[in-house]
Amino acid sequence: MLYIIGLGLGDERDITLRGLEAVRSCDKVYVEAYTSLLSFGLASDGLSRMEKLYGKDIVVADREMVEEHADAILREATDSNVAFLVVGDPFGATTHTDLVVRAKKIGLEVRVIHNASVMNAIGICGLQLYRYGETVSIPFFTDTWRPDSFYPKIHRNRQLGLHTLCLLDIRVKEPSLESLCRGKKCYEPPRYMQIHTAINQLLEIEESNGKSAYDAETKCVGIARLGYEDQKIVAGSMKDLLDVDFGLPLHCLVIVGETHPVEEEMLDFYSIKSING
Amino acid sequence: MLYIIGLGLGDERDITLRGLEAVRSCDKVYVEAYTSLLSFGLASDGLSRMEKLYGKDIVVADREMVEEHADAILREATDSNVAFLVVGDPFGATTHTDLVVRAKKIGLEVRVIHNASVMNAIGICGLQLYRYGETVSIPFFTDTWRPDSFYPKIHRNRQLGLHTLCLLDIRVKEPSLESLCRGKKCYEPPRYMQIHTAINQLLEIEESNGKSAYDAETKCVGIARLGYEDQKIVAGSMKDLLDVDFGLPLHCLVIVGETHPVEEEMLDFYSIKSING
Repeated sequence: MLYIIGLGLGDERDITLRGLEAVRSCDKVYVEAYTSLLSFGLASDGLSRMEKLYGKDIVVADREMVEEHADAILREATDSNVAFLVVGDPFGATTHTDLVVRAKKIGLEVRVIHNASVMNAIGICGLQLYRYGETVSIPFFTDTWRPDSFYPKIHRNRQLGLHTLCLLDIRVKEPSLESLCRGKKCYEPPRYMQIHTAINQLLEIEESNGKSAYDAETKCVGIARLGYEDQKIVAGSMKDLLDVDFGLPLHCLVIVGETHPVEEEMLDFYSIKSING
Repeated sequence: MLYIIGLGLGDERDITLRGLEAVRSCDKVYVEAYTSLLSFGLASDGLSRMEKLYGKDIVVADREMVEEHADAILREATDSNVAFLVVGDPFGATTHTDLVVRAKKIGLEVRVIHNASVMNAIGICGLQLYRYGETVSIPFFTDTWRPDSFYPKIHRNRQLGLHTLCLLDIRVKEPSLESLCRGKKCYEPPRYMQIHTAINQLLEIEESNGKSAYDAETKCVGIARLGYEDQKIVAGSMKDLLDVDFGLPLHCLVIVGETHPVEEEMLDFYSIKSING
């Protein structure tokens, strides 16, 4: 049996009782590093805290390991119980569909244990979940690569009066250009896009496309460390949010569409003006 | 302090460790009946199982009670810890924004503990969450009221190649027409829309609008009891799904947009054809 278990947002105590029971029934426990490093990794003792609370040794499986050794992990699960822990929900922002497809192809029983992910926890900012359009991702620009595929999607959402959740780029364990050239494995330090970088990129793309999908006065909500005890939520114009220090990752951004009165009331509590007195 | 705690989908064991800790620290615990009856209520001993596991007496707060006595609940929370338990995520399909707004208005500290909701757990059907457009609700038609506000939304999503999550109507503790006339409180028996009813209504509205947003051959995924141990997921055309017995509530329906290969592979596992051999 392969269990794919969502850990939710926050720390090791955000697992569900059902998830904990499953982990404790397993012979082998993996935790996906790609995203988990982001939250648990912020506390340097994240892994050992998990191992202590769950009562199991946990193997950190980074993206490379999962891609290269998925078959071995699945083989283990054919004659024992294996848990694969995932930050958020197993089918949240990052997908584990591929692992499930592989497992099902060899007739392996898969059980998924759900948890919160950014896709629903974002509701805390007060904008109704059913009023969101398509979600977009904002990738880090480089000197030569400034992709804008998010732009027409945001434009459409705005024309329809819908909110847009922008997921901001994460670069963890990216091979360095030098290492690619030399055939050795060296990695760039991890990078997490901050809200002000995302807004600057958004404004640059608006300027080059010029369709008035949004501008510096467009109302947004910036959210840092969603679901953590020290999460920070600030509502204001793009221009206003450029100056807010949101602190440690992860950051995400919502571009606000048309709002109902109860949405307005919630945004008021997070407004940069009410926060700054 | 007011805690608003998501219970997730399934049963009492889907609470998170953080949520359980919070419940146990509270002097008074309410559970919202409007949605909770749907899942925990299916097992007649749902409430007592929760009380036993959480180690607290729990007051069932139906919609009427919350609307009429919100101020009293909030007053209790000003000088003690009060938990308000909610099926799914506090800001999932059903919103608790209003309670939070009222609490914040009187300066009450509110802590939200997230969990899975239909809005992210739907990812299990294999369609990527970021490829969904606006979510729609399908209300029960009556002889004289056949609202179709979902139709243009589905139409737009389909034109953009996006998937559409359809939330199906729930009628719990609706005053009966007779009771409204006599001024006494009597209630209709609860009703939960089934997938075949939703599809019949969708096809009726397509026929009267005639814009070819979808038809009987359009691929859909029907999901019953999402997140429960006996959940049922079947992919097929609207016409095919009309004949599937999905069993007990809750049901929901996804109208499939354009698909990527890995989405196709997952849908194949749930296909009505592969299930029926």
